[in-house]
Amino acid sequence: MPTRDRWGRDQNSAGHLLWLVRTGRARTRGELQNYTGLSRSTITQRIDVLRAGGYLRAGGVEESTGGRPAELLEFDTAHGVVLVADLGANHARAAVVDLSGRVLTEEHEPIKIGTGPEAVLSWVDAALRRVLAATGWDAGQVRGIAVGVPGPVEFDAGMVTQPPLMPGWDGYPIAERLRRGWQRPVYVDNDANLMALGEQAVHYPDCPALVLVKVATGISAGVVIDGRVYRGIDGGAGDIGHIRLYEHREARCECGLYGCLAAVASGLALAQRLTASGTRTSSGAELVERIRSGHAEAVHLARTAGKLVGEVLSTVVCMVNPAVLVIAGDLADIHFVTGVREVLYQCALPRSTRHLEVSASRLGAQSVVVGGYAMVVDQVYAPDAVDAELARLMPAGVPVSC
Amino acid sequence: MPTRDRWGRDQNSAGHLLWLVRTGRARTRGELQNYTGLSRSTITQRIDVLRAGGYLRAGGVEESTGGRPAELLEFDTAHGVVLVADLGANHARAAVVDLSGRVLTEEHEPIKIGTGPEAVLSWVDAALRRVLAATGWDAGQVRGIAVGVPGPVEFDAGMVTQPPLMPGWDGYPIAERLRRGWQRPVYVDNDANLMALGEQAVHYPDCPALVLVKVATGISAGVVIDGRVYRGIDGGAGDIGHIRLYEHREARCECGLYGCLAAVASGLALAQRLTASGTRTSSGAELVERIRSGHAEAVHLARTAGKLVGEVLSTVVCMVNPAVLVIAGDLADIHFVTGVREVLYQCALPRSTRHLEVSASRLGAQSVVVGGYAMVVDQVYAPDAVDAELARLMPAGVPVSC
Amino acid sequence: MPTRDRWGRDQNSAGHLLWLVRTGRARTRGELQNYTGLSRSTITQRIDVLRAGGYLRAGGVEESTGGRPAELLEFDTAHGVVLVADLGANHARAAVVDLSGRVLTEEHEPIKIGTGPEAVLSWVDAALRRVLAATGWDAGQVRGIAVGVPGPVEFDAGMVTQPPLMPGWDGYPIAERLRRGWQRPVYVDNDANLMALGEQAVHYPDCPALVLVKVATGISAGVVIDGRVYRGIDGGAGDIGHIRLYEHREARCECGLYGCLAAVASGLALAQRLTASGTRTSSGAELVERIRSGHAEAVHLARTAGKLVGEVLSTVVCMVNPAVLVIAGDLADIHFVTGVREVLYQCALPRSTRHLEVSASRLGAQSVVVGGYAMVVDQVYAPDAVDAELARLMPAGVPVSC
Amino acid sequence: MPTRDRWGRDQNSAGHLLWLVRTGRARTRGELQNYTGLSRSTITQRIDVLRAGGYLRAGGVEESTGGRPAELLEFDTAHGVVLVADLGANHARAAVVDLSGRVLTEEHEPIKIGTGPEAVLSWVDAALRRVLAATGWDAGQVRGIAVGVPGPVEFDAGMVTQPPLMPGWDGYPIAERLRRGWQRPVYVDNDANLMALGEQAVHYPDCPALVLVKVATGISAGVVIDGRVYRGIDGGAGDIGHIRLYEHREARCECGLYGCLAAVASGLALAQRLTASGTRTSSGAELVERIRSGHAEAVHLARTAGKLVGEVLSTVVCMVNPAVLVIAGDLADIHFVTGVREVLYQCALPRSTRHLEVSASRLGAQSVVVGGYAMVVDQVYAPDAVDAELARLMPAGVPVSC
Repeated sequence: MPTRDRWGRDQNSAGHLLWLVRTGRARTRGELQNYTGLSRSTITQRIDVLRAGGYLRAGGVEESTGGRPAELLEFDTAHGVVLVADLGANHARAAVVDLSGRVLTEEHEPIKIGTGPEAVLSWVDAALRRVLAATGWDAGQVRGIAVGVPGPVEFDAGMVTQPPLMPGWDGYPIAERLRRGWQRPVYVDNDANLMALGEQAVHYPDCPALVLVKVATGISAGVVIDGRVYRGIDGGAGDIGHIRLYEHREARCECGLYGCLAAVASGLALAQRLTASGTRTSSGAELVERIRSGHAEAVHLARTAGKLVGEVLSTVVCMVNPAVLVIAGDLADIHFVTGVREVLYQCALPRSTRHLEVSASRLGAQSVVVGGYAMVVDQVYAPDAVDAELARLMPAGVPVSC
Repeated sequence: MPTRDRWGRDQNSAGHLLWLVRTGRARTRGELQNYTGLSRSTITQRIDVLRAGGYLRAGGVEESTGGRPAELLEFDTAHGVVLVADLGANHARAAVVDLSGRVLTEEHEPIKIGTGPEAVLSWVDAALRRVLAATGWDAGQVRGIAVGVPGPVEFDAGMVTQPPLMPGWDGYPIAERLRRGWQRPVYVDNDANLMALGEQAVHYPDCPALVLVKVATGISAGVVIDGRVYRGIDGGAGDIGHIRLYEHREARCECGLYGCLAAVASGLALAQRLTASGTRTSSGAELVERIRSGHAEAVHLARTAGKLVGEVLSTVVCMVNPAVLVIAGDLADIHFVTGVREVLYQCALPRSTRHLEVSASRLGAQSVVVGGYAMVVDQVYAPDAVDAELARLMPAGVPVSC
Repeated sequence: MPTRDRWGRDQNSAGHLLWLVRTGRARTRGELQNYTGLSRSTITQRIDVLRAGGYLRAGGVEESTGGRPAELLEFDTAHGVVLVADLGANHARAAVVDLSGRVLTEEHEPIKIGTGPEAVLSWVDAALRRVLAATGWDAGQVRGIAVGVPGPVEFDAGMVTQPPLMPGWDGYPIAERLRRGWQRPVYVDNDANLMALGEQAVHYPDCPALVLVKVATGISAGVVIDGRVYRGIDGGAGDIGHIRLYEHREARCECGLYGCLAAVASGLALAQRLTASGTRTSSGAELVERIRSGHAEAVHLARTAGKLVGEVLSTVVCMVNPAVLVIAGDLADIHFVTGVREVLYQCALPRSTRHLEVSASRLGAQSVVVGGYAMVVDQVYAPDAVDAELARLMPAGVPVSC
Repeated sequence: MPTRDRWGRDQNSAGHLLWLVRTGRARTRGELQNYTGLSRSTITQRIDVLRAGGYLRAGGVEESTGGRPAELLEFDTAHGVVLVADLGANHARAAVVDLSGRVLTEEHEPIKIGTGPEAVLSWVDAALRRVLAATGWDAGQVRGIAVGVPGPVEFDAGMVTQPPLMPGWDGYPIAERLRRGWQRPVYVDNDANLMALGEQAVHYPDCPALVLVKVATGISAGVVIDGRVYRGIDGGAGDIGHIRLYEHREARCECGLYGCLAAVASGLALAQRLTASGTRTSSGAELVERIRSGHAEAVHLARTAGKLVGEVLSTVVCMVNPAVLVIAGDLADIHFVTGVREVLYQCALPRSTRHLEVSASRLGAQSVVVGGYAMVVDQVYAPDAVDAELARLMPAGVPVSC
């Protein structure tokens, strides 16, 4: 987790200069000089390399403040596109996103994650090829692929580990499977993590700490600190769906245990309760529909679920002290969010909520896709990765670092 | 919390070279060259400046691996000392720590924080002068002062804000008060934060995420991520003492509200309950004494308090996914810790506890002092701070950065 | 178990000197003199004998502390290799381990212990010859053979007695059968004992008391005290699989009785229950696969089994007060281990768990092989055994003891 | 716990020779020569030293087997006496024991341990002086003092730690308190440990593993392996009184928790139940009296308590596999012991009980005194201790070791 060293040993490489430009820290050769202490000639040489590689382009000239106007540098968004697959419990989505973050095209399919990795990933593979074809970009211009999954992830290995409700996926090499066909970097992450990253990147770019809780078929959370997904020591951070509530020990959870938060407050649990009380509800969509249409029992269940999630979030908010708490997922509607707020303001320390924005997801159904895009850009355009790619591309003898 | 930029705009300054040496990233001129891309002569010039300033010294030569053995560089621990004041609810401690982290001398006083800032800080000021005098170092060699307080802190302002149980302290300029007299940097932090930093620095230096919960008169927590205190957006992170527990809404808390964790599980709450049940207990020391001597009701209360704190920590552990959970403070004894463990393994997600070490504090009463030392060193020897100090010390014309 | 006399009557023999060197108690002639009170010339003569026998070698000289540097003595790991056969309920493994504890090569076969001793030991015999041949060592250099079996063992006789689920093995002369072919010492031990010894030797060498519980097809435990397997008066120590639980008297066990721990918490019992509830599960591997993939009923069964085993372990931990409790075997996964911890911290005396490390096996599938190696070394290089071997090797007239 | 090295570095010292004689390993100079490899003259010289120190004496001559009859050597039991204080929950006992293990005189007092260390130890001090005076020996001939206490002990520190039901004793320096007045070695141990040691020393001298469970006001156990008290890693071994039984979680224990074994099966618990059911019973003696006189409810309670203790002992017996299980303490009468046996034979593995002798205490009320004597002899006459004492006594120049 040594974020300090994330751009590797050489802190002044071409890749690092790109990072300074892409993140808005420096816009001209002069600003790059100030930042790095490199000579003007070294800077110019490296910028030439970045331009030749398609990473950087001129973006006009600085508004004159006297003297010769300086050329502005900017990240070249024509460098390629990003693919994202968003796998939910009962749906899948494939999308193409350009480097400015615009979703170019996408495809959606009601496929169940429980069908197993082979079937689901075959669809993903084919769907990504279809949506890509539809945009006119070709496979060689794809810079990376992100996959969001509804389970605990080993990010470096690109697989899920012991996920509840994902039979056949434990240890399945998801990233490897797609990498084989596409010959591109593939990043697999928990969907709540990607949602959190997406919301942060688009709507709260300066927010130093954001928590997103996703309540759909299951419940999970993502944390973004200083613009990066916080994972904890082994990828478990945010895994709140199966915290066991002392006072609900009788509720059987789909995971096999009793009293989990998901057993009393997830979409699946609510649909089951509604069915048990006489209103057959077989899908999340149907549940949401009943809540929206004011079905009394459904509304009551949604409000109560929000309160239970709010109780857990009270601790989360006091512990993490985020600026933003986003409620996402199918259930993130008015009654549920109100329940969350009710208990949050009742139980959390006033100090923890005084500057806290509690908000329903603004990206909605596209949050995983947008987060996946942000994840790929963060990884593929990291200084080290860029340097390695430049070294591969450039004729021998062109230095990309000192 | 933008850690990426913490050494300021110039990433190759003298201060930055010191940081690379002090944190073990580079030990020789050659390694510094590899890291920074600077020329040998620039490196040598900056090292000379650091030596002249007393920051760096030679530490022998590298074990020969062929060729001319390289001179090893090391942080000069003779550069000065650090002072720490540890203010608890009912005690205060003043200590001198050398730059290798050794506590040279300390003084202890049973002074109540409720006496107010003037009285307490007068004692602090005088006590720090006494302990410093006892070591033979003088005020000019003090590099910085840390103050630990049992309340919520605005770190940058060096004051506490709306603390429960600290009458007179709200907004009082603690850091300013001491800075005036000592003319040195003063850092005020929550005691649980400093405890967490101390445990991490000494006992878990490689731990990427550590949570410490302190249960004494009150309850609070500190989080250390990547070796630095995590504060959240406005210093509230870890403030779990006044999370309100849904099922204990009848318990009146000293803070004025009902049902806070501190109202049912703090040392103060336990002493009150014990008194109410017929065993007069007027101090934390008395409470701990009763627990240790096997007083049945006291033992029962300690175990139950541990379980309640464990319930909150289940969420904390699932959310933060730390490698280490330290239980500190007067109550961190065998019965309380067992209660925490009992509920933690019952309620937290198995994935969150599989690699988790749950441990009683190992630094004990010295944890704030050790953490305060670590805090001062991290701040005073940060690249920017060193560069600023060098600029002040050096005759004009000696460049400390490019 | 009279450990005091384990090196026989003569406490200063050549074999004893080897033991002092091998265990790190003495590294030079001078240290051996201090330890034994023997004259320099006697020590030198015995060291010559040990060197001639291939037991001891020079290992450089002591770091100079003034005076003539002393020659360091060390155990000669080129003296030979150790063979280990690891027999499980449904698998067998044959391995060669060098004297530094490195596994050189191994072979694995899905053979059922129920096939009976003739078939299984024929495979063992042939497999050991194959793996040995693959290493380049020859049979004359094999120093000893260890065999781990999943049943109660009479260690001195080298056989199992009245084992449940091992038809045909009762009283079968396992050690004798292999000794005939190899003409080498053969040690037969319960697999949990060897696992415990392996974990202790490699990961907890300074641990004075370690308990390992193995939960696979069956359940058993091994205890290592002061570095040696504790067997009780007739090899029964650790035989906890068929303790009968008062509150589960209806559960029929494979051993013929009702209510055994193994009848409710072993891999076999869990597979049967899962099958009975509609999910056909015919092997331990299949059971583990279901648990890992999040099959709700399988997860529930694993957690519950962990709790039942944890209840028994609460007594074990209070009685033995070990420093380390290792959970091993196929079921030693996250849900089972969490169940053990949950009940252990609930039921055991706080004093018994305050310094206890509860950990999943770190050697995993190799624990029996590593433990078998440690067992052979401990026996074959015991002072008495070495003296006897030297007496056999040396020409008459060379004294190995006084 | 390195028993192998317990006689220190020099394995052939005078103290070691005494140990060989005292434990029956060698009876003549010739046998000592065989054992140690020392020359006849060295042996003779060291025996002279031991005789001069009063440790060894001649014990006649060997029964002739041809040749010159050899002089027999024996431990000189006239070397002094041992004092023992046996502190129970509601009584105390002071005794003098000679070196052959005979109790010379003793005094008994119904003093409550809850009175606190000052009062109790004042009585101990005075009573030990009275009983010693009654024997005619004087303080200078006391070789050591043992103190048995009904709580968990830190043996090396000579104090109890966090004992339930012993207010004021936590961390009180018991050994130190008595050492000050007597200037003799003082050993403090748990009473069940001393009882176990006493039974083993007198009635089962060759038993390699013995477990004693004491059921009086409270419940605890002692384990003797290879003739020495087994303590576990920090003195907790055998601490079974407060194991919590899953199925009795409603029973409030005097220790402050619920469901402890002591809460349902100790003498205190039984007396309380009997009282609650209408038969006022205020002491252990009264309870025992009622059981012996056939009071139906009392008999029922004793039998049931035996069964509950038997359930825990089933695990103990399967884990430790002892040769002997002694039931001691006030409750160790026919109904209780029968209850133990009933469940033990029902629940323990047949293999664990086939060679097990289950027996009521044979030393009865004197078991702590006898065990205390054995403890002192084991410590004071250990080779190292004897060598140190000889070095103190002998004129400079007389070698006690090589």
